[in-house]
Amino acid sequence: MMRKKILLVKKWVWVFLPFYLFTSLPINAATVKSPNGNIELTFSVDATGRPVYSMSYKGQPVVLPSHLGLQLAADKHASKGMNETDLLAGFTIAKEETATFDETWQPVWGETRDIRNHYVEYVAVLQQQTEHRRMLLRFRVYDDGIGFRYEFPQQKELNYFLIKEEKSEFAMTGDHTAWWLPGDYDTQEQETQESKLSEIRSRFHDAVNWTNSSVGVFSETGVQTSLQMKTAAVDIDGKKRSLYINIHEAACADYATMHLNLNDTTMTFTSWLTPDATGLKGCMQTPCETPWRTVMVSDDARDMLSSNLILNLNDPCALDDVSWIHPTKYCGVWWEMIVGKSTWNYTDEYPSIKLDRIDWTKVKPNGRHGANNEKVKRYIDFAAKNGLDEVLVEGWNVGWEDWANLWKRDVFDFVTPYPDFDLKMLNDYAHSKGVKLMMHHETSSSTQNYERHMEQAFQLMNRYGYDAVKTGYVGDIIPRGDHHYSQSMNNHYLYVVKEAAKHHIMVNAHEATRPTGLCRTYPNLVGNESARGTEYEAFGGSRPDHTCILPFTRLQGGPMDYTPGIFVTRLSEWSDNPSWARITLAGSLALYLTMYSPLQMAADLPEHYERFDDAFQFIRDVPCDWDDSRYLEAEPADYITVARKAKGTDDWFVGGKCDEQGHEAVVKLDFLDKGRKYDCTIYADARDAHYETNPQAYTITKKVVKAGQTLKVKEAPGGGFAMSLMAR
Amino acid sequence: MMRKKILLVKKWVWVFLPFYLFTSLPINAATVKSPNGNIELTFSVDATGRPVYSMSYKGQPVVLPSHLGLQLAADKHASKGMNETDLLAGFTIAKEETATFDETWQPVWGETRDIRNHYVEYVAVLQQQTEHRRMLLRFRVYDDGIGFRYEFPQQKELNYFLIKEEKSEFAMTGDHTAWWLPGDYDTQEQETQESKLSEIRSRFHDAVNWTNSSVGVFSETGVQTSLQMKTAAVDIDGKKRSLYINIHEAACADYATMHLNLNDTTMTFTSWLTPDATGLKGCMQTPCETPWRTVMVSDDARDMLSSNLILNLNDPCALDDVSWIHPTKYCGVWWEMIVGKSTWNYTDEYPSIKLDRIDWTKVKPNGRHGANNEKVKRYIDFAAKNGLDEVLVEGWNVGWEDWANLWKRDVFDFVTPYPDFDLKMLNDYAHSKGVKLMMHHETSSSTQNYERHMEQAFQLMNRYGYDAVKTGYVGDIIPRGDHHYSQSMNNHYLYVVKEAAKHHIMVNAHEATRPTGLCRTYPNLVGNESARGTEYEAFGGSRPDHTCILPFTRLQGGPMDYTPGIFVTRLSEWSDNPSWARITLAGSLALYLTMYSPLQMAADLPEHYERFDDAFQFIRDVPCDWDDSRYLEAEPADYITVARKAKGTDDWFVGGKCDEQGHEAVVKLDFLDKGRKYDCTIYADARDAHYETNPQAYTITKKVVKAGQTLKVKEAPGGGFAMSLMAR
Repeated sequence: MMRKKILLVKKWVWVFLPFYLFTSLPINAATVKSPNGNIELTFSVDATGRPVYSMSYKGQPVVLPSHLGLQLAADKHASKGMNETDLLAGFTIAKEETATFDETWQPVWGETRDIRNHYVEYVAVLQQQTEHRRMLLRFRVYDDGIGFRYEFPQQKELNYFLIKEEKSEFAMTGDHTAWWLPGDYDTQEQETQESKLSEIRSRFHDAVNWTNSSVGVFSETGVQTSLQMKTAAVDIDGKKRSLYINIHEAACADYATMHLNLNDTTMTFTSWLTPDATGLKGCMQTPCETPWRTVMVSDDARDMLSSNLILNLNDPCALDDVSWIHPTKYCGVWWEMIVGKSTWNYTDEYPSIKLDRIDWTKVKPNGRHGANNEKVKRYIDFAAKNGLDEVLVEGWNVGWEDWANLWKRDVFDFVTPYPDFDLKMLNDYAHSKGVKLMMHHETSSSTQNYERHMEQAFQLMNRYGYDAVKTGYVGDIIPRGDHHYSQSMNNHYLYVVKEAAKHHIMVNAHEATRPTGLCRTYPNLVGNESARGTEYEAFGGSRPDHTCILPFTRLQGGPMDYTPGIFVTRLSEWSDNPSWARITLAGSLALYLTMYSPLQMAADLPEHYERFDDAFQFIRDVPCDWDDSRYLEAEPADYITVARKAKGTDDWFVGGKCDEQGHEAVVKLDFLDKGRKYDCTIYADARDAHYETNPQAYTITKKVVKAGQTLKVKEAPGGGFAMSLMAR
Repeated sequence: MMRKKILLVKKWVWVFLPFYLFTSLPINAATVKSPNGNIELTFSVDATGRPVYSMSYKGQPVVLPSHLGLQLAADKHASKGMNETDLLAGFTIAKEETATFDETWQPVWGETRDIRNHYVEYVAVLQQQTEHRRMLLRFRVYDDGIGFRYEFPQQKELNYFLIKEEKSEFAMTGDHTAWWLPGDYDTQEQETQESKLSEIRSRFHDAVNWTNSSVGVFSETGVQTSLQMKTAAVDIDGKKRSLYINIHEAACADYATMHLNLNDTTMTFTSWLTPDATGLKGCMQTPCETPWRTVMVSDDARDMLSSNLILNLNDPCALDDVSWIHPTKYCGVWWEMIVGKSTWNYTDEYPSIKLDRIDWTKVKPNGRHGANNEKVKRYIDFAAKNGLDEVLVEGWNVGWEDWANLWKRDVFDFVTPYPDFDLKMLNDYAHSKGVKLMMHHETSSSTQNYERHMEQAFQLMNRYGYDAVKTGYVGDIIPRGDHHYSQSMNNHYLYVVKEAAKHHIMVNAHEATRPTGLCRTYPNLVGNESARGTEYEAFGGSRPDHTCILPFTRLQGGPMDYTPGIFVTRLSEWSDNPSWARITLAGSLALYLTMYSPLQMAADLPEHYERFDDAFQFIRDVPCDWDDSRYLEAEPADYITVARKAKGTDDWFVGGKCDEQGHEAVVKLDFLDKGRKYDCTIYADARDAHYETNPQAYTITKKVVKAGQTLKVKEAPGGGFAMSLMAR
């Protein structure tokens, strides 16, 4: 699975620093530099015993002195050992430890074959004298950012506690530009806002996706992570350059998802966790730790995209056997339902459905059910012909008649197909053609119902030969009052991944918490939605720059099942849906490279791909697993150009995507093997292409190229390009 | 399984009554009499369209005109089909139906071999004109009471709704004496209060069991069901007699448990449901119905005990095969932990435990762990020698070190034994002696954790030969905010029973919702606690009249695992526990008859039974399944005398239990076969016996008796007697 090379064994340096009470300034601050010295972290406790850290990059402050700590909640069971006193102040530094760590590991799937995990670690053992409690702050200082977390050792005076709020501060140096989503306990499916930090409040209300199936906003200056920012130009290496700063978290397991609440006077963010139904934000038992809080920084936007900081902060793979996990290209019976041409549900006969009271063989079909035998066979044939690995089928199982937002617990059983979906026949048919069906488990956010049926559902998958499931959490969480990103829900999502792993099933969870790199530890978590995906192109559309932002934000924690590949962007051409996708056809191809994922869908209808078969050749060719990736150009919300080397080959693929302004990509072919020739095919926007007026105008150019050459490729407004470079 | 004799086929009478708007009094009230005419029900809608019912017994009013209806909650998903308008008023009677039903059925286990279900049914189909909605009120009028429920057919304008509160009124005729428990969402383990209705408010605070592991009181005049009352003397059949009135519910499944809130000015109770974490009281989808609300009444207290109204209102058995369900006598490793002589937990080494981080073989034992191989073998030997069927072992599985009220989700895994409990050896040993071990699953109210592990836990039971499980729900419900008696928890309890049935496992659930007769439908639900059991004799004691009240209240809905049989009542004789059981030894024997249950424990230690082996003979002899039961004497909180005929034999057993006043039972042997002789053994309090000063003074008298004789047996204060009558 993962081969570890520990290049430098941990070396622990023990330093005891004295602590002087009643001084008003941080004293004896520890200073820790990253391996190359670019990042510097300072840590101390202030006069009241509050932990304080700050951070700089190449001498420029990134995070000003910021407090750390946790507010604990009062509890009626205090007498039984629930600890209630805050973990905010009254600390002294009892012990400090530093160490250097350098390891290169190989992910099961990813953007590169090798990932180097190289950091300097600093641990402050904090003692709360009056309470006789210990809390550790562990910092890892990388060349491209820092991570820190709270650790709570098992100890006599701290065994159980309830979190009222985590109070981790991130004090910014100014009114940065930010690409932000409204902080929300239940959805991330908003359009990203680009504004100054000071403008968040005034723009907040209109930024909320009020029509989403579940909305839980909490503060007019609350935003989600990962939050990408850009500073005004500062002096770096003698030049005026902006800093790119990204705040997120890593390894969020059995802990509430963190949001950031901005004090827009001081420009300081404070962590804001997702609550449970009672407003509480965490139930903790020592020994335990929080997720890592991460701050990435660079003066080169490309470093934001190539960083492995989030993955590195996660634990190594926990699965013994990963041979069954594989990158997957797929198509599916999905887009036609999203667009409204066909339906997930089988009948319109009943105002509501109870699974145990319906004889499905006697139900009157509505004639528009998507997941029928004929349709699915058509998709299987298409997948087989075009080298796609799997076919997703949504709406195959009973219960879709009244599935969402009706507080219905027993909404699906995940094992009973509609009468026009022949489970055995279709799987046999698919397997005979070398294709697998991909399972779909929409839970309707009724998590108890899913957990009750999950084992049987996975057994059914094993029986029929499914090895991947797309799960969904549409609508408000049942039990009522809970939220999509709470501690209990985060526990649930990971529980599903772990149970699936026992059955050798890969998981692609939609509407679940935004990822935080847990796919390193559980590589069968091959995808997540957790943002505004292609489906919104059928719900009114997303801005053309949307896909030039996502890699900076949503993709930091793990791959997104964005479901790219819409060739026929005007949906009214084949449906009653007036919406249209804000992208050119060549831009759609680019997404297979710029939006890294081991799971890539060809989302449009087979007949649409057949209409543009020469362009579809790129989707046939492009892999979704890589030995190397080089971000050639990047600017948030403007453009991204990336070159990737296909896993186990010498072939390269290059993609560029731009915003509504268009872009001229400059592709220096210095990543190719020197002296070798490559057959290059370029799928580019035609000269008059435009995402709105002329999206299907593309050119396909073939040439032979070699290392050292530079290719300039014009990207239309809302466009992009894709390129294959096959080694001769 | 259950053999049905339908003596009188349903006969439906359709009556259409006109409805006059704007009249101020109920008009055209329907009147329905019970089969023997004793009970009369009236129903109408008032001038504002509110449903109104009243009820009388032998001409005396029992329930004065009382409104019925439901308040619905507003919901953000109203636009998606959630109905929000109250179901309280604006109704007309669209249709009425009456029918007579008479059936005799046989329970899998019970107090009698045959149960007659004989009632007159009245259904009012109510139409809410402005909302185009229909709601049915179904009444069943028995000779000993009524049941009614709301029914919601599937219909265009009523598919989903949320219950803010059910508003079922029970208007009493006066300031009755009541035996009540404080209304509480989480516990029923209080001492019963005997007071006038008008005194509830002033006595409420002191009546709450504030030290219970979970407490959720809601109103100073809120009380639990089943609520037993007694009226002042009224004129009945020309004599001055009190009425005994009991309010409870039947067939509460997937609906919140009902409490009663008293308006102590009007002496009217209104239903008060148990909320979920958000304060909501029910999520409903049509077609559906509420549980039955029941009012039992008689001028003879004995009728309260012999009534089958609650069972009759439940659905027939839902299990195809019930051959594996059997009444059970058992002992167990339990009392010594309750008393504090030994422990459930294995080690005292850690301040807290995480199951996946402990190597139990290396843990330092505390030396006091109860569930060890040697101890369990001792209990198995004792059970085998004395004809007890099973041996309960609590504390066998890891996790007891920090199990309760610490908001710990993953508290038990239900499959891993402590190192000193050899699962296979002990089961093999027990089976070799004809005894079974009884499983124990304390959930610590972490229901999600239990549901996640349940299937594996049941599989383990099947593997080792367990066929019964005692479950427990100590502490506040996890997920936080939910309550023991909410809709979701009631769904959970029944889910466990249904899943257990698939594995042929009998369930005895402690701290779960009070039963409402669901054991008719799921007869593998062989027991519940849901009240203050024998354990409280080790927690300060219960009043001597406690067991003379429970059969009138708690036992109405189903059997209680009261765990009787304490012979050594002064716990300080063998432990450091200063508490003592308020009962004589003969009184303890009586409980095996007066507290009907198919599951009966001999709760005291084997060595205590060996000390009083001649008295223990009665526990060896007494069965726990019956062909017939005759309540000979009864007065709430004073005394109960019952004669029962052992299943499949001609032998009878008689038991009498009294309060702190003592009692002289008069046992007319008119239930014996005429002309037949019976070997009679009487276990009675000695002349100077007293529950406080001389509890172990008993006499054993043998004689030969026959039908027609009358035996007078003296019961000491806090005492009782037991009698076996073996047919020659």
